[in-house]
Amino acid sequence: MSAVTEHVLLVDCPDRPGLVHAITGVLFRAGANVTSNHEFVDMGTQRFFMRTACEGLPEADAVRSQVLAILPAGASVRIRHAVPRRVLVLASREHHCLADLLIRHEYHELGAELLAVVSNHENLRALAEKFSVPFHHLPHEGVSREAHEEAIQALIGPLEPDYIVLAKYMRILSPRFVAVWPNRIVNIHHSFLPAFVGARPYHQAFERGVKVIGATSHFVSHRLDEGPIIMQQVIPMDHSYTPRDLERAGRDIERTVLANSLRLLNEDRVFLCANRTIIFD
Amino acid sequence: MSAVTEHVLLVDCPDRPGLVHAITGVLFRAGANVTSNHEFVDMGTQRFFMRTACEGLPEADAVRSQVLAILPAGASVRIRHAVPRRVLVLASREHHCLADLLIRHEYHELGAELLAVVSNHENLRALAEKFSVPFHHLPHEGVSREAHEEAIQALIGPLEPDYIVLAKYMRILSPRFVAVWPNRIVNIHHSFLPAFVGARPYHQAFERGVKVIGATSHFVSHRLDEGPIIMQQVIPMDHSYTPRDLERAGRDIERTVLANSLRLLNEDRVFLCANRTIIFD
Amino acid sequence: MSAVTEHVLLVDCPDRPGLVHAITGVLFRAGANVTSNHEFVDMGTQRFFMRTACEGLPEADAVRSQVLAILPAGASVRIRHAVPRRVLVLASREHHCLADLLIRHEYHELGAELLAVVSNHENLRALAEKFSVPFHHLPHEGVSREAHEEAIQALIGPLEPDYIVLAKYMRILSPRFVAVWPNRIVNIHHSFLPAFVGARPYHQAFERGVKVIGATSHFVSHRLDEGPIIMQQVIPMDHSYTPRDLERAGRDIERTVLANSLRLLNEDRVFLCANRTIIFD
Amino acid sequence: MSAVTEHVLLVDCPDRPGLVHAITGVLFRAGANVTSNHEFVDMGTQRFFMRTACEGLPEADAVRSQVLAILPAGASVRIRHAVPRRVLVLASREHHCLADLLIRHEYHELGAELLAVVSNHENLRALAEKFSVPFHHLPHEGVSREAHEEAIQALIGPLEPDYIVLAKYMRILSPRFVAVWPNRIVNIHHSFLPAFVGARPYHQAFERGVKVIGATSHFVSHRLDEGPIIMQQVIPMDHSYTPRDLERAGRDIERTVLANSLRLLNEDRVFLCANRTIIFD
Repeated sequence: MSAVTEHVLLVDCPDRPGLVHAITGVLFRAGANVTSNHEFVDMGTQRFFMRTACEGLPEADAVRSQVLAILPAGASVRIRHAVPRRVLVLASREHHCLADLLIRHEYHELGAELLAVVSNHENLRALAEKFSVPFHHLPHEGVSREAHEEAIQALIGPLEPDYIVLAKYMRILSPRFVAVWPNRIVNIHHSFLPAFVGARPYHQAFERGVKVIGATSHFVSHRLDEGPIIMQQVIPMDHSYTPRDLERAGRDIERTVLANSLRLLNEDRVFLCANRTIIFD
Repeated sequence: MSAVTEHVLLVDCPDRPGLVHAITGVLFRAGANVTSNHEFVDMGTQRFFMRTACEGLPEADAVRSQVLAILPAGASVRIRHAVPRRVLVLASREHHCLADLLIRHEYHELGAELLAVVSNHENLRALAEKFSVPFHHLPHEGVSREAHEEAIQALIGPLEPDYIVLAKYMRILSPRFVAVWPNRIVNIHHSFLPAFVGARPYHQAFERGVKVIGATSHFVSHRLDEGPIIMQQVIPMDHSYTPRDLERAGRDIERTVLANSLRLLNEDRVFLCANRTIIFD
Repeated sequence: MSAVTEHVLLVDCPDRPGLVHAITGVLFRAGANVTSNHEFVDMGTQRFFMRTACEGLPEADAVRSQVLAILPAGASVRIRHAVPRRVLVLASREHHCLADLLIRHEYHELGAELLAVVSNHENLRALAEKFSVPFHHLPHEGVSREAHEEAIQALIGPLEPDYIVLAKYMRILSPRFVAVWPNRIVNIHHSFLPAFVGARPYHQAFERGVKVIGATSHFVSHRLDEGPIIMQQVIPMDHSYTPRDLERAGRDIERTVLANSLRLLNEDRVFLCANRTIIFD
Repeated sequence: MSAVTEHVLLVDCPDRPGLVHAITGVLFRAGANVTSNHEFVDMGTQRFFMRTACEGLPEADAVRSQVLAILPAGASVRIRHAVPRRVLVLASREHHCLADLLIRHEYHELGAELLAVVSNHENLRALAEKFSVPFHHLPHEGVSREAHEEAIQALIGPLEPDYIVLAKYMRILSPRFVAVWPNRIVNIHHSFLPAFVGARPYHQAFERGVKVIGATSHFVSHRLDEGPIIMQQVIPMDHSYTPRDLERAGRDIERTVLANSLRLLNEDRVFLCANRTIIFD
């Protein structure tokens, strides 16, 4: 764990012997000083993942080409500067996740610039505007789902967000919308997925009589609540909790999980591998 | 929390005003010294639950009748002595939950007498016999499920167990068998139920890419893995865990959850309310 | 756990047989409907503690007198209405605990009215004023500790707070100040007390190489970091965490622990017993 | 995380640019297939740590020399075969940690051979002998500390243990004894160190009124309870726990922490850095 460093090299390719040696050789010859390094080979897919943070990488494009040249076919190589990510927030009525993001943004703890908040309700406008983040109300009443999503798309497309964060956005996004932002939409689900998929998970948890509740952040894919999981956190409960108590208690972990997941993304610590994530933290 | 005390009064009845006053009045007049007291009203069912531990209750039967007389129709009143419960263990091949129960039994930490271990495999015999607990091998090969369960029933019925503990027993019990022991069979499931019902939950967890795994103890009902949950515990995992790593890590919580659930049962701390449990710990 | 109900009866007295029966009798005869009830007897001090929430208690003063009349000498009986507590916040430079309180206050989740924020620094003014909570800057430079505390006292005394919350207030309060507000000042300490008392606990934790860090809320007494503990929460860490990483990770639990402790206080769920707390949650 | 692999290369040296590249180059040219790799640079000491597991390392001694040749002065390089470690257990009266080690040993989960159990009491003999592990009773009554430790030393020295595990051994080892086994004695302390150093930590925890208790495994150094921490785990408690309840609850984490720490050691996942540990898990 560390603060965002100057450059981060991100490699995802088929595994073969000697990759670490070859890649670190390119960096060494370029004069880069590696400050942290993580690798992982996924046994199922036989893919190799590497995240290397370094200082002093003067010609990032050239280094990227050199790394790519020594890797097997099918490799992905990215070099990221530690610039703040551009993040767009979709919200509905609930304030707690949005408020948490706004506070962290205000104090430069997110590694991101919050471009705007878009909501299908009006009630969070005052909150967003307290922190000088633009708020757009796009009501869903009286318009088709298609038209509503087109309005959102028209608004957020020009903002060119790196990530779209669903901070308790309570509408299901269509596969068509999701396809525009592959692996770039992050949701917080208020249960320990895959338990309690879908609506009203706290009521489901209450009915089932579980003794622990959870929150799950995940990438949004075309299948409801089934995208790759980024982070999960749980808290104990007992028989005395009403569904309303569960909601209250759950808010504390929902906002923490969502904000920390966004931090991981902004620091380029999250890789995708099949339907799972590899987190180099 | 406390050690098992001399008598425990257990009340489960429809709620109405004044119940605590009325019940404690009976105990007070009988000269009992209440050492701990828990009550709970379930709002959904409007049922009242009370567990009162007390010293000096000379005529338990008379007290039980007096309490019953002041309660609404549909009340259940039990008075339990702190005698060890009679517990029968069903196991298969895995040793860790059984070993944990045997160790706690050996050192008088279970509040129970382990009557016998019954297994559909032979390999745990040596372990059980090290601790002088009778072991019975009832193989399931070459017999029908019905015949196998009848053999188990014939063996355990005369032992008159209070509880049957499934310590990684890997066969599904038929509704017919379960019906003979209503709310008296306890299972340990190696997942955070209701996630990953059924077989191979660690492989399911690996495939889904969860970041936390769990273990769940529950009463066995006629529907697979859907009985009332007694206790759940979780541990974090990350992308580097193989299914085998998950199994290893999971064993530490499976055995702890199962043994502690059995302790709660043996201390009469578990009430049933619809498909949920109320735990006075 | 439940929302604040209409009246809460709080009893703290020497233990003797029949107390629950006697107290619930007074409430029953007064026509009160008990909605939740907790009792505990501390074995060391032989004191009895009871918290009873009820609806419909028309003459609270009379009931209080009747309860007091049947209790042993040395009893404390309070009946509280579910009115918001009056809370004063002392802060320094760090924003995260204050921000969390402001957000919860804004959305009526604290059960409290935030009367004002008093700080020895100016930098949090904008934050407090975004949420329309008065902010007072009382700098400590150039004045004696005595004079500084007198200024604080002069400011907050007329506000008549129920509780004073130290939301990362980084100055040590004198015994003289503390004595004015016995058991009414709550602090958040960024360690798992009693580990790492005093200054820079995260640096102490880093140096000691612990694998878990914590946050502790406690009443402020005349001895530094030794008052009764209300709530503690921990998170795992590893060798890769710098002291700065620890600070970042710790903020998530500090603010949660402080806000939830304040909720417990505001719902009258916290009793004091010697140097320990009894929490009826 | 993974099962013990064929060879593990362990490097600890002053940091300088290019180390990963240079070391992986030696392995690559030797034809070794790296299956997992961890590196870490400690910023305070500027030391570099690396653990590389690989298959197919035919000439380990030659590889070790080649790696050493390319490293800065002051480097430590070890290559370990995945052979079971030789472990000696010191115990007193309490059974739970010893029982856990014996069970894991019996089922080949420790990565270690338990050479013998040495105790200053006789009561655990039957337990050890159930699992065919030699038990030696060396009473401490009537002999000086020096003579007692010399007797232990005379017994265990010829057994050539890799590690000595204190499984609730309740006597303090002298600096003289500890110096014979530097960084090879592992203790389980029943508190969240550095809280509650010394005797009766559960009573100390009870008196202080903490809301979480813990267990800590650590290397034994010449200063009581101050050696490098390997692993810590905690569980919540509340006001209703007596010191005896704390002991009972604590046993579940003590044994788990100790056994898992030993597994980490046996898999060569633990490095020392100043008074801290670096754990590559």
